[in-house]
Amino acid sequence: MIYFDHAASSFPKPKAVAQAMHEAVDTYSANPGRGGHVLAEKARLAIDETRKKLANLFGAASSKNVWFYQNATMAINQALIGFPFESGDHVITTMFEHNSILRPLEKLIREKGIKVTYVEPNEEGMITPDVFLAEVTDRTKMFAVTHASNVTGAIFPIKELAKVATKNSIVVVVDASQTAGTLPIDIEKDGIDLLAFAGHKSLLGPQGTGVLISKQDYNLEPLIVGGTGSYSELPHQPLSWPDRYEAGTLNTPGIVGLSAGIDEINRKGISSIYEHEQQLVKTFLEQSELIEGLTVYGPRNLLERVAVISFKLDGIDSHEVAMILDDHYQIAVRAGLHCSPKIHQSMKTIDTGLIRVSFGPYNTLDEVSKLIQALKEIEAAF
Amino acid sequence: MIYFDHAASSFPKPKAVAQAMHEAVDTYSANPGRGGHVLAEKARLAIDETRKKLANLFGAASSKNVWFYQNATMAINQALIGFPFESGDHVITTMFEHNSILRPLEKLIREKGIKVTYVEPNEEGMITPDVFLAEVTDRTKMFAVTHASNVTGAIFPIKELAKVATKNSIVVVVDASQTAGTLPIDIEKDGIDLLAFAGHKSLLGPQGTGVLISKQDYNLEPLIVGGTGSYSELPHQPLSWPDRYEAGTLNTPGIVGLSAGIDEINRKGISSIYEHEQQLVKTFLEQSELIEGLTVYGPRNLLERVAVISFKLDGIDSHEVAMILDDHYQIAVRAGLHCSPKIHQSMKTIDTGLIRVSFGPYNTLDEVSKLIQALKEIEAAF
Repeated sequence: MIYFDHAASSFPKPKAVAQAMHEAVDTYSANPGRGGHVLAEKARLAIDETRKKLANLFGAASSKNVWFYQNATMAINQALIGFPFESGDHVITTMFEHNSILRPLEKLIREKGIKVTYVEPNEEGMITPDVFLAEVTDRTKMFAVTHASNVTGAIFPIKELAKVATKNSIVVVVDASQTAGTLPIDIEKDGIDLLAFAGHKSLLGPQGTGVLISKQDYNLEPLIVGGTGSYSELPHQPLSWPDRYEAGTLNTPGIVGLSAGIDEINRKGISSIYEHEQQLVKTFLEQSELIEGLTVYGPRNLLERVAVISFKLDGIDSHEVAMILDDHYQIAVRAGLHCSPKIHQSMKTIDTGLIRVSFGPYNTLDEVSKLIQALKEIEAAF
Repeated sequence: MIYFDHAASSFPKPKAVAQAMHEAVDTYSANPGRGGHVLAEKARLAIDETRKKLANLFGAASSKNVWFYQNATMAINQALIGFPFESGDHVITTMFEHNSILRPLEKLIREKGIKVTYVEPNEEGMITPDVFLAEVTDRTKMFAVTHASNVTGAIFPIKELAKVATKNSIVVVVDASQTAGTLPIDIEKDGIDLLAFAGHKSLLGPQGTGVLISKQDYNLEPLIVGGTGSYSELPHQPLSWPDRYEAGTLNTPGIVGLSAGIDEINRKGISSIYEHEQQLVKTFLEQSELIEGLTVYGPRNLLERVAVISFKLDGIDSHEVAMILDDHYQIAVRAGLHCSPKIHQSMKTIDTGLIRVSFGPYNTLDEVSKLIQALKEIEAAF
């Protein structure tokens, strides 16, 4: 089969991912940090090692600033729901956000009385810092922004947004689920305060892994409280990091799988992965222009997008196209709203949804050509 | 090595657990429920299958009532923090609780103004329904109780507590982390409203898995909100189960690993696992009586305990004993407070902690005898 659904979860994973998980489960599945014995220590060290790799990859000051969750959604919930908002505080976000940001913000509107501004894209489908700046008030406490759209692939200017934020003492929360592993990110240099991402997408790790990296202390309230294996006599979460923000047993096999995924990213190099995927995008954009009824959404400029492309075929239901691609061509794509309803409202594709293809490091130009050929045939058949 | 730390995490796992995870990661690591293609469908079906097995094992009316989390702590947080408490509402719990129940309750005291009564054990180290009944007020909304202590192994009379609860319209939340997989549990027959447990303990699954089973609708507020792959246009979590209580990508490899663990439990049979572990406990209790300075805590009656035993050796620090057992005898145990501080306060072992041994289905009588021999030697050496 041809797998073009990397924006949902990457496939295949490097062989080392499942192998590392297999070894963890079979040979040291004791509870990390919950006992001094050799097996529990081995699990703890494996997790610490992964924290260090993540801190290095994303420019965190310490591995203590790296916190593990079951998915990016939980990491984002920790950042948003845990933030010390007061009634009337203001958040600026974009129409591009995934429900992992939209739904926590809506919950904060209902429960804490915050106000949220959803910034619309410009005509090129981009978000610019001046639009954010125009919306800043003296109650603006946070920018909550995806690094790249999981619908159009558009990359947003995080560094420039962060400059606006810094000048106005605003905390920048970035959802890097579509970019961690394919674009260089350095929380210090980029001015990101809280960085959330999935381990199972471009970082090539397994599902069950999400990460939040906190640049400094934002006085977040822990989302989940419980055993930490430390300061057990305290009735509340300990103050020390990462324990404060991680309650209960961690997902050792998932985390060591993620570690193996990161090794592969480091071996290949983020820039070479990016270049490879750019070639695939370029090929798709060029070849798809020859399909008359096919409309691609999002930026045409290659430098403004990651390898996520949404399009429609005139007069053919998006879900039907996806189903034909799956059934008849063994090509996996995703049709619908991609959990990001507002950008579909904005692009007026909310009723039909779009067909999304997303490429990964192991996809080939030949696979892209096969997709194009399939789309041509589908169009011709309708 | 001899592994006696099953109360923290079981080891070894059945070979099928890592194999199932390996296969999931290598052959269908697409996003479950987030696309219609064959690979995403395979992941979704594998998760649904596990839900069904859990519903069957624990007597849930439907697999929709089974919700997956990263650990038991998160499942308990969903049940407690998500419960629609109002200021002044009352919860009865026990001194035996793990921080996974204590810390959420303390958070609810601070943030929602609930009141909590911590029931003390009687002289035999047991909790009886009449003590609970004596504390019930017209504001009592919940009993939050561990099924068996992770320190003394004492089993509490859930069914009788539930009868008291039902008569008084009180919701029963049970933490079955020490019993799911070793004691029969049926939420309907036992009168349990919300049942939380870890997948990586007696169910023999991997870390990264926790479960909450909800008997009916208690109007819980979702703890985590975000993408569900369903009703994406809604600004809030959908009402349908399990989606309402599961946001973001699920841990497919962890869940299929848990599925393999459950298969092993079903194959062996809970009652035969229980009987085997009882033999180990019986042997330990009998043989440890011959060690003069060794004091076992918790019930002496075999029928009142699971295979978790805590003890001290007079005049020898608990952590030191654990370290010697690990270093010199390659026996893994856990010393300290075991994340359950209140019962150590109650038993006056808060300053020293205790040494805990906990047995699993693959432990042998010979291993127990080796532990006894080691403890004799340690005592003689001091």
